[in-house]
Amino acid sequence: MCINQSNDEAVLSKNYSKDGERKITLETTIVNESAQYLKTAELLSQAFGTDAAARDRAGGTAKAQRDALRDSGLLKLPIPKEYGGEGQPWSLVLRIVRELAKTDAALGHLYGYHAFQTVLPHIAGTAKQKEYFYKESAANNWFWGNSSNPIEPSLIGERVGDAFVVNGHNTFSTGAKDSDRLAITWYDNPEKTTLYIGIIPTARGGITIHDDWDGMGQRQTDSGSVTFENVLVEADEIIDLTESKGTPFATFDAILSQIVLANVFVGSAEGALEEAKKYTSNKSRPWYLTDYEKATDDPFIQRSYGEFWIDIQAAVQLVEKAGNKVDEAWSRDRSLTKEERGDTVLLTGAANAFGTKVALNITSSIFQVMGARSATRKNNFDRFWRNVRTHSLHNPIEYKRKNIGHWVLTGEYPTPTVYS
Amino acid sequence: MCINQSNDEAVLSKNYSKDGERKITLETTIVNESAQYLKTAELLSQAFGTDAAARDRAGGTAKAQRDALRDSGLLKLPIPKEYGGEGQPWSLVLRIVRELAKTDAALGHLYGYHAFQTVLPHIAGTAKQKEYFYKESAANNWFWGNSSNPIEPSLIGERVGDAFVVNGHNTFSTGAKDSDRLAITWYDNPEKTTLYIGIIPTARGGITIHDDWDGMGQRQTDSGSVTFENVLVEADEIIDLTESKGTPFATFDAILSQIVLANVFVGSAEGALEEAKKYTSNKSRPWYLTDYEKATDDPFIQRSYGEFWIDIQAAVQLVEKAGNKVDEAWSRDRSLTKEERGDTVLLTGAANAFGTKVALNITSSIFQVMGARSATRKNNFDRFWRNVRTHSLHNPIEYKRKNIGHWVLTGEYPTPTVYS
Amino acid sequence: MCINQSNDEAVLSKNYSKDGERKITLETTIVNESAQYLKTAELLSQAFGTDAAARDRAGGTAKAQRDALRDSGLLKLPIPKEYGGEGQPWSLVLRIVRELAKTDAALGHLYGYHAFQTVLPHIAGTAKQKEYFYKESAANNWFWGNSSNPIEPSLIGERVGDAFVVNGHNTFSTGAKDSDRLAITWYDNPEKTTLYIGIIPTARGGITIHDDWDGMGQRQTDSGSVTFENVLVEADEIIDLTESKGTPFATFDAILSQIVLANVFVGSAEGALEEAKKYTSNKSRPWYLTDYEKATDDPFIQRSYGEFWIDIQAAVQLVEKAGNKVDEAWSRDRSLTKEERGDTVLLTGAANAFGTKVALNITSSIFQVMGARSATRKNNFDRFWRNVRTHSLHNPIEYKRKNIGHWVLTGEYPTPTVYS
Amino acid sequence: MCINQSNDEAVLSKNYSKDGERKITLETTIVNESAQYLKTAELLSQAFGTDAAARDRAGGTAKAQRDALRDSGLLKLPIPKEYGGEGQPWSLVLRIVRELAKTDAALGHLYGYHAFQTVLPHIAGTAKQKEYFYKESAANNWFWGNSSNPIEPSLIGERVGDAFVVNGHNTFSTGAKDSDRLAITWYDNPEKTTLYIGIIPTARGGITIHDDWDGMGQRQTDSGSVTFENVLVEADEIIDLTESKGTPFATFDAILSQIVLANVFVGSAEGALEEAKKYTSNKSRPWYLTDYEKATDDPFIQRSYGEFWIDIQAAVQLVEKAGNKVDEAWSRDRSLTKEERGDTVLLTGAANAFGTKVALNITSSIFQVMGARSATRKNNFDRFWRNVRTHSLHNPIEYKRKNIGHWVLTGEYPTPTVYS
Repeated sequence: MCINQSNDEAVLSKNYSKDGERKITLETTIVNESAQYLKTAELLSQAFGTDAAARDRAGGTAKAQRDALRDSGLLKLPIPKEYGGEGQPWSLVLRIVRELAKTDAALGHLYGYHAFQTVLPHIAGTAKQKEYFYKESAANNWFWGNSSNPIEPSLIGERVGDAFVVNGHNTFSTGAKDSDRLAITWYDNPEKTTLYIGIIPTARGGITIHDDWDGMGQRQTDSGSVTFENVLVEADEIIDLTESKGTPFATFDAILSQIVLANVFVGSAEGALEEAKKYTSNKSRPWYLTDYEKATDDPFIQRSYGEFWIDIQAAVQLVEKAGNKVDEAWSRDRSLTKEERGDTVLLTGAANAFGTKVALNITSSIFQVMGARSATRKNNFDRFWRNVRTHSLHNPIEYKRKNIGHWVLTGEYPTPTVYS
Repeated sequence: MCINQSNDEAVLSKNYSKDGERKITLETTIVNESAQYLKTAELLSQAFGTDAAARDRAGGTAKAQRDALRDSGLLKLPIPKEYGGEGQPWSLVLRIVRELAKTDAALGHLYGYHAFQTVLPHIAGTAKQKEYFYKESAANNWFWGNSSNPIEPSLIGERVGDAFVVNGHNTFSTGAKDSDRLAITWYDNPEKTTLYIGIIPTARGGITIHDDWDGMGQRQTDSGSVTFENVLVEADEIIDLTESKGTPFATFDAILSQIVLANVFVGSAEGALEEAKKYTSNKSRPWYLTDYEKATDDPFIQRSYGEFWIDIQAAVQLVEKAGNKVDEAWSRDRSLTKEERGDTVLLTGAANAFGTKVALNITSSIFQVMGARSATRKNNFDRFWRNVRTHSLHNPIEYKRKNIGHWVLTGEYPTPTVYS
Repeated sequence: MCINQSNDEAVLSKNYSKDGERKITLETTIVNESAQYLKTAELLSQAFGTDAAARDRAGGTAKAQRDALRDSGLLKLPIPKEYGGEGQPWSLVLRIVRELAKTDAALGHLYGYHAFQTVLPHIAGTAKQKEYFYKESAANNWFWGNSSNPIEPSLIGERVGDAFVVNGHNTFSTGAKDSDRLAITWYDNPEKTTLYIGIIPTARGGITIHDDWDGMGQRQTDSGSVTFENVLVEADEIIDLTESKGTPFATFDAILSQIVLANVFVGSAEGALEEAKKYTSNKSRPWYLTDYEKATDDPFIQRSYGEFWIDIQAAVQLVEKAGNKVDEAWSRDRSLTKEERGDTVLLTGAANAFGTKVALNITSSIFQVMGARSATRKNNFDRFWRNVRTHSLHNPIEYKRKNIGHWVLTGEYPTPTVYS
Repeated sequence: MCINQSNDEAVLSKNYSKDGERKITLETTIVNESAQYLKTAELLSQAFGTDAAARDRAGGTAKAQRDALRDSGLLKLPIPKEYGGEGQPWSLVLRIVRELAKTDAALGHLYGYHAFQTVLPHIAGTAKQKEYFYKESAANNWFWGNSSNPIEPSLIGERVGDAFVVNGHNTFSTGAKDSDRLAITWYDNPEKTTLYIGIIPTARGGITIHDDWDGMGQRQTDSGSVTFENVLVEADEIIDLTESKGTPFATFDAILSQIVLANVFVGSAEGALEEAKKYTSNKSRPWYLTDYEKATDDPFIQRSYGEFWIDIQAAVQLVEKAGNKVDEAWSRDRSLTKEERGDTVLLTGAANAFGTKVALNITSSIFQVMGARSATRKNNFDRFWRNVRTHSLHNPIEYKRKNIGHWVLTGEYPTPTVYS
């Protein structure tokens, strides 16, 4: 399958490989950078959208789509140009997360999580590690996955010389499957004395990635469990915290995680509205006790679409504002102050909480403006709600509100954690 | 499997027949009538609940459960005692609909629809037809289904002597599969000149019930399509409207349909709350950044449960009030006035609209008080939302509000239709 | 002014006394008791409504209206017949609170608070005290007010023989002004060792009632402050807790307070809707960019009225259910169990919280269906919102939800307090 | 009273003139333009805030505050520099509207309305008129008011040579009192054949401005009625539409009106939150059944503040985005296309509708986080809700939603009117 756009510099071809697996190839000639990246993301989003409903039903790994992301060049976006990356700002990465989430929230999720794993050595490691991992990631076009659990000592590492040997089991490991590198965390004992972060090849011996992700939404995020049996983490794979220790920048990943999710939610709402609009325009019938010729003439349906759109605009402006704030904070690098970090956390937290509220409402309400016949398994329009509902449970919205309200009343910033 | 309740007059045994199909048998010794019927319904509801999640996934016909309803004696509840029925009020039938919907909204739906089809000859037919169909239904323990479409001339009947030969295709036919009698409607031509109602054996030649119900919710309502090829409707199977014509009582089924749905919604909300409560109490963990020992100690979780319960109480009181109003209106029989009908429509419409609002909110919000791990396919807790979301699209809530508001402002009752 | 109703047994005459103060006289011939009491309340409510807007602006004591309540016989409603009262159930008293609140939330409030002060000796005192105060109250047609503060030791009593001499200042004393008896509480020292309850004549020496109530709503509830200077409380005016101590019945006033407020809220919402309806029907113009002839033809206006009415029905059913539960619990008297009390607290708390939510929304939203010209000081339609907003702050709705949610999760009833 | 800010270029002195009328003088040395204007607005807003509650109670004309606005130089902001104005973008004017509305929504309203009346000759008149009125307005520091009614033929003008003699009565004339120039509209006959716009001195003979504004909110907007008795409108005071006719730019005032209101709403919400925060921090007590030391420690109070703040951020981002869109559209001047106008209308309409929703909720909900004692007349915190509630009724929010939804579904822009 080929998507050719008139006066377009991008050609997206989707093929099936011999073994029946689908493959999406994206060839791009970059003209104007940022616009072009976004264009690429839009084309990918459209392509992913053609079978997103079917893939949601199937679950499992979106191998062809992940490979299309690999081929698209978008994986290198957050890597500075000096290391072979594209040196694009977070606001663009987040805009692309949102674009992908419009048709497929799982892909938006995977791409966003990939992006913030990629910068972990930069955030927490030494200057040398930052350089090494950026260069390798760019050169090898790594897709990053994750198997970390800072909440519990689910993985325990035993020191062997300068290296560690890690054992244990992580329940949720988003994007681990089909990844090239895995960001992991372990404790040196069950008492949680010290937390270590490592970046290792996913193919490293002793790692078993299980196909047991059973989410009711975000079905193709491969968020299943991973078992570690005597997995070696070499000395230079261990993030060396000596330079980052105590800096507000060292926990920047918490900010990135929050704002990636916010964009997945808002993108899902935008996508749901778009799908609903098509359905109402083309398939819905006017309520039979009215005289309207078309469903789109119904004042209640119009009014609802207006309210949905208005709420989405508010959410979009908030995530964009938060995205710009992230750019600003990111540019401060290790000189980021506690206050600057705090202000960014407040805005990204707000975007996350607001995006959740808007997205849950719209993904549930679209059915009312489409009518009874829309609610079929074939249409699979409930996937938007299932995706947002599932993904928004990661960390409780009430505590995000509480943290922000505490700051409103006292001026004290939320304590830096994995979620704030 | 046997459920034995101490000091209990009911024994519910659930077995698997040889061919692997499940069979639920219910043996009851009736002691105090109404309480006993409700007790029976509660036991059925519990039994249905044990595999409701699995059956939702499977879809198709809930054969064993339908047979358990047959065996339970509950099918005869609305039939007056003089005709061999149980002579129970609508308020009890509706209470049972709600009870069943707590664990399985599809079964609640089927039972409620069965009940109001059963009284169609009473509502619209002659005294003779009323007697005939009540007696036959009681004697043969009929399970009633439906394939009617008063909105469109999807079925066209050609008069052959006093009988009709009916052809056509109905898209939605709730409970047609595995039913004993089918209430159908047809027009005598595509111009919709006259609408006829007939009650025929589901096994009648020319009827093909398709297994094509594809709803994202209410998965076991067998609401698929039905094809009619030269289906004979005998003269005495045609509801004779001469006695009912023009009476407000003749459209009582619209009232029953609205209040059955309302009870399905409210029952679903009650059931969702119950499931959530069990999960939060037994499986949820306290948010890791708090010091609470158990999730149930979290003030935000407590507060949310409080709000859910409060909303449900309001909804329960409103459906019960509406149910009592239905009893009152029903007892007026054909002397029901326009005003009495109108007042009943207002209250049942209100219960339906309010039940929808409450049930949609709660079935979506329970996840927030259960946490991330609750949102799995295995748990299948999203079925509550999918059921309510799907079923509440039958007729637009906005028009229910509009009709009621119009009455508030002008004193004019909603025009009697299939939905009001 | 005389309101004469055709085939009516009640004559309400409203006159102005010589000194310019208004006086409302109500003469009733009781026919069918409960219906008649309600009829009386309806007539009073109508009469109070004629100048409720003006009196809200004026603030101060609703002397004429209080006297009309005195003349109406309604003050004796909760007093058993054997003691000279009317022996009516709480559900009727609460229904009357709601009826009065429709036009004047302050009067509904005062009447409801009077009622539950009246039964304080019954709830907490000895059998002898119960008899004494009931008889005296009935014989003298007492209007009860309140100056108690169980939260703080704002009043301190010094024991002098069997009596107490009380000093201090209470900030809020609803209905103290123009009352005949005052229920007060004091501690025997600032350490809050023991709380005493007393019933004393409002005219008792040393009591100064200040006209300093400055609420933005509930303007005529005389909820100002009261100063106590060496106020004597005779031995037999002190409620003797020996018989009630430790019984769940002894804190029944908390239940009554909650459900009185709930009825004030719901009545306010009903009254706001009624006023709005009149305005929209008679004065509102259709939005000038539409073709509707009248504002009442506008589908959005109709839809909003429908939603308001539906929410009110739910609230009404919930307060009525709670009212019936109160009757039931009250009839258990001192044999009321902890569980029975708990179940009643849950339902009255739910009615209170739900009533608050509905009433706040409707009293604020009515303006949208009346239009820009409705929002004048002359119309004073904002008094509905100001009343509900002010009165609903007595005890935080969030804690009512929390208490109920805690019970949902654990089965433990809310701890008996002044508010639960 | 003098407000001296350290390292500050602005001195605001507030005095009382001999005749007892208050006078506020603002002396500013402009350093960095935009920042300085905003600084000035902030100082004014603070000064206005000191007695905003009292002035709300008093109603009438905010003479001293209007004069302070005159002295501040802010009246000339929208006038291009070439004509003697400050040449500032709309986004700054709107930001100042919001700043003023934080403490006094009436002043924000008056300033915003002044600003968009000022540009009427630019929008609708000839190049010559634009120049003339801009120059005169800048030179004389005019404060513009309004007495126009395009909906009805409330004013009728009779042609006398090239001039008109106008008679009639306008019900709402925001800011007419104490204004220097008045924008008026009239029809040449009751059949509404042609609408004329004129700019005349408020002091013109035959104009009587009545002190009859009786709004329950926006009390000092002087939105009372104005009588016109044989009021002469000279030929050159009549806006000559020949050059603007049919251009999308000619109805730009509809856009400005919508976004001015939006900023008044959002500013009111921000101001309400700020006042509430001060109260909760300094005066609220923790709920007596809790162990929290301060009200600000209560998790429910924190959570609510968080949600309020989040909603406000979303609203702020949306009005800012809309403001930038207005700048962009305004810069297109008479070459503004239908599509560009349409896109701007959508975003300003969205900001208005969303701002209304957020502001109504927050101005009503703040009481819950302040507690019972906050709801006094003295505090007058209800003025925030009364202001938003009153002002948001100008044009129905439902029709704004409908217009936007219609565009979502069909791509057709809202028909240009006074409100869209």
